[in-house]
Amino acid sequence: MDLDLARTWLATAVEEAKAGLAEGGIPIGAALYSADGTVLGRGHNRRVQDADPSVHGETDAFRNAGRQRSYKGTTMVTTLSPCWYCSGLVRQFGISRVIVGEARTFHGGHDWLAEHGVEIVLLDDPECVGMMEDFIAAKPELWNEDIGE
Amino acid sequence: MDLDLARTWLATAVEEAKAGLAEGGIPIGAALYSADGTVLGRGHNRRVQDADPSVHGETDAFRNAGRQRSYKGTTMVTTLSPCWYCSGLVRQFGISRVIVGEARTFHGGHDWLAEHGVEIVLLDDPECVGMMEDFIAAKPELWNEDIGE
Repeated sequence: MDLDLARTWLATAVEEAKAGLAEGGIPIGAALYSADGTVLGRGHNRRVQDADPSVHGETDAFRNAGRQRSYKGTTMVTTLSPCWYCSGLVRQFGISRVIVGEARTFHGGHDWLAEHGVEIVLLDDPECVGMMEDFIAAKPELWNEDIGE
Repeated sequence: MDLDLARTWLATAVEEAKAGLAEGGIPIGAALYSADGTVLGRGHNRRVQDADPSVHGETDAFRNAGRQRSYKGTTMVTTLSPCWYCSGLVRQFGISRVIVGEARTFHGGHDWLAEHGVEIVLLDDPECVGMMEDFIAAKPELWNEDIGE
């Protein structure tokens, strides 16, 4: 896909990550876009805010998109490489593409998704890297809890 | 593990599945057990009830268990083979064991989990098979929506 468009969509996920950070949460955000570029849902990690370990950025965006009959042609954009939980979500529901803000601070399942036919756009965005580096340095215990380590 | 104990734990997941069915929902239930046999959380698919596609049986049980520092030694018991989304949950958070009620009506990611060191106990329970067969026959569209097909 066009990388300028990918970066524009990433900005939505970054806004979500910053909103999560401002709430005292883990700064990971995501959004689900339809093929025509409409935001179907957007969200961010809510482990801290809702005391809910099941709400990662991607699952929050997916939830907020509500019930959909098909995910064909949709794109999940996320500030961070999707963990196995969120990668499994993408594979099960047939989300066509994932735009990944960065995979330096955490390398999840995006290679596995590529092997299974999902288009992966890895942006290596410095702002996303910086957000996670700062967060991991400040709250390593919380980060490890969020990825089950 | 002891199969009688596995069947006892499965009964909790079956209760959840039946509760979901009684609510007009998809009859898949699950529970997360600690190593000492305590129920940490239990739940069922809530796609219909909450108009929330992110709540499968396993993710509901996981959510209802709240924040946990570690999942080492825990067991997820589910009435149906876990889909990729729920299999990813198990792998990411290091849940040690999955008891699967049945994998006849749907074959998810439990083989993949076994390859990655998760203990899989497949019970092939006739009541679980019957519940899903009846549901799929009655509401095939809803079932396909729930697995993204």
